[in-house]
Amino acid sequence: MEHRMGVDTHPFDTATALQVVGDDMFVGRTSDDYWNFTGPFGGATAATLLRATMDHPRRFGTPLSFTANFCAPVTKGDFRIAVREIRSNRSTQHWYMELVQADTGIAATATAVFAQRRASWGHQTIQMPHASAFEALTPWSTQGMMAWMQHYDFRFPNDMPQRLGTTPNAVPASARSQVWISERRSRPLDFLSLLAFADTFFGRIFHVRGAMFPIGTVSMTTYFHVDADDLAANGDAPVFGTADGKVFTKGFSDQTGDLWSRDGRLLATSHQIVYFRAD
Amino acid sequence: MEHRMGVDTHPFDTATALQVVGDDMFVGRTSDDYWNFTGPFGGATAATLLRATMDHPRRFGTPLSFTANFCAPVTKGDFRIAVREIRSNRSTQHWYMELVQADTGIAATATAVFAQRRASWGHQTIQMPHASAFEALTPWSTQGMMAWMQHYDFRFPNDMPQRLGTTPNAVPASARSQVWISERRSRPLDFLSLLAFADTFFGRIFHVRGAMFPIGTVSMTTYFHVDADDLAANGDAPVFGTADGKVFTKGFSDQTGDLWSRDGRLLATSHQIVYFRAD
Repeated sequence: MEHRMGVDTHPFDTATALQVVGDDMFVGRTSDDYWNFTGPFGGATAATLLRATMDHPRRFGTPLSFTANFCAPVTKGDFRIAVREIRSNRSTQHWYMELVQADTGIAATATAVFAQRRASWGHQTIQMPHASAFEALTPWSTQGMMAWMQHYDFRFPNDMPQRLGTTPNAVPASARSQVWISERRSRPLDFLSLLAFADTFFGRIFHVRGAMFPIGTVSMTTYFHVDADDLAANGDAPVFGTADGKVFTKGFSDQTGDLWSRDGRLLATSHQIVYFRAD
Repeated sequence: MEHRMGVDTHPFDTATALQVVGDDMFVGRTSDDYWNFTGPFGGATAATLLRATMDHPRRFGTPLSFTANFCAPVTKGDFRIAVREIRSNRSTQHWYMELVQADTGIAATATAVFAQRRASWGHQTIQMPHASAFEALTPWSTQGMMAWMQHYDFRFPNDMPQRLGTTPNAVPASARSQVWISERRSRPLDFLSLLAFADTFFGRIFHVRGAMFPIGTVSMTTYFHVDADDLAANGDAPVFGTADGKVFTKGFSDQTGDLWSRDGRLLATSHQIVYFRAD
């Protein structure tokens, strides 16, 4: 399969590119550029699933809610995304997607709600935490780290993450963290990259235990609090992220992430349940 | 259709009852006992969708993650729930469900992840807020309110919700609230009732604006932090709930809810995106 991407195509657009191969059917291909431990970066997989709906000729409105369920590792190579329009109302639309690989079957499913948003009363109950400006901070070195991380410019206003070993802290540390996230190569923020940003937070267990453990996102839900006009206002400015986790028990933990525009607008809130292996 | 429920059947079990009518197909019926504004209480609908998987002969493990998407109002009467086993791994299982009514089509979809949970390192980063004991508080009067509310004993440790009019506060109030939740008629906590509890929090806009507005949950995701043994330990003891919301914009707002056992264990965390109409 050939992707007709120009030499100037952003690697994120290459990684999430889809070809139409039939009614409600798309074909894509994993990108080594966004490789993680044992498969593609989950944020790229989620964005590819969302793209299948964004690109669908019957889609209207902008993403409001998106849930991805990761059923099995995505293996290197081609995949198909089957899309089903579940229901279209006057101003909302419901979709279901499946990512399937020939050799291993269904690797991920997703549901999405789109909405045509209109002006209303508005209120934000929380403010973006005070933090040093992106420009005042040093880019975090991702040298020798996984491929997907090379595409992001992470800047940490508080504790810079250390290279972690396998010996955990004697006492659990905080699960909270703050980070500026920006594309290394400029790309205006859109719904796809915002969704991927929501999956860039490092595993909470790494923060709490100060050590590496095998982890994997099982299910991830993101709510979008912006429409296309709001997003366009962001351009390629960095996004501020705050993440936290509440509980680690019997092999699974939660994670919550908030993504803010630099002028303090809450762009998206995201939640995930994560498998971990630690005795 | 006849439900063979005894006279002693708890109304929640009647409301969420399903009959097997084929491979992967169940039939249920809405219950006037759990009626809300314009359809059944969303927590009962979500629990019914979860029951279709819980009752499935191929199901293993306990619910880890559950997302319900509400596509259209459920109308009074019968519905079918079609269940698809998406993928079963060694210790996790992925499901997809659709609730369909003959006259109106697909009214709700859901995805669920089940897991066989095993002992692991465990840690809870937050503690249940200090609050007066359930027994020390007065049950909130639900007289004249919607049918579903009659089945719960809500007790508010802080501000007791007032009967609301239609004139909003001059200044937005807090979106945070705390509440004890218990079944009016005793029923041991299980995954179905815990899921329903997660949808009992009153709309955040009512708290913030001090007035009533049309609202409706669009999508709701709940993560379970307990297995069957953990839940059994709760018995029919009341559950403590804390809820919050971060942003109201262009017709939609988020809501987060935490559910705690009375001894301070985080049982479930839940998130939803809610439609509202307010200028």
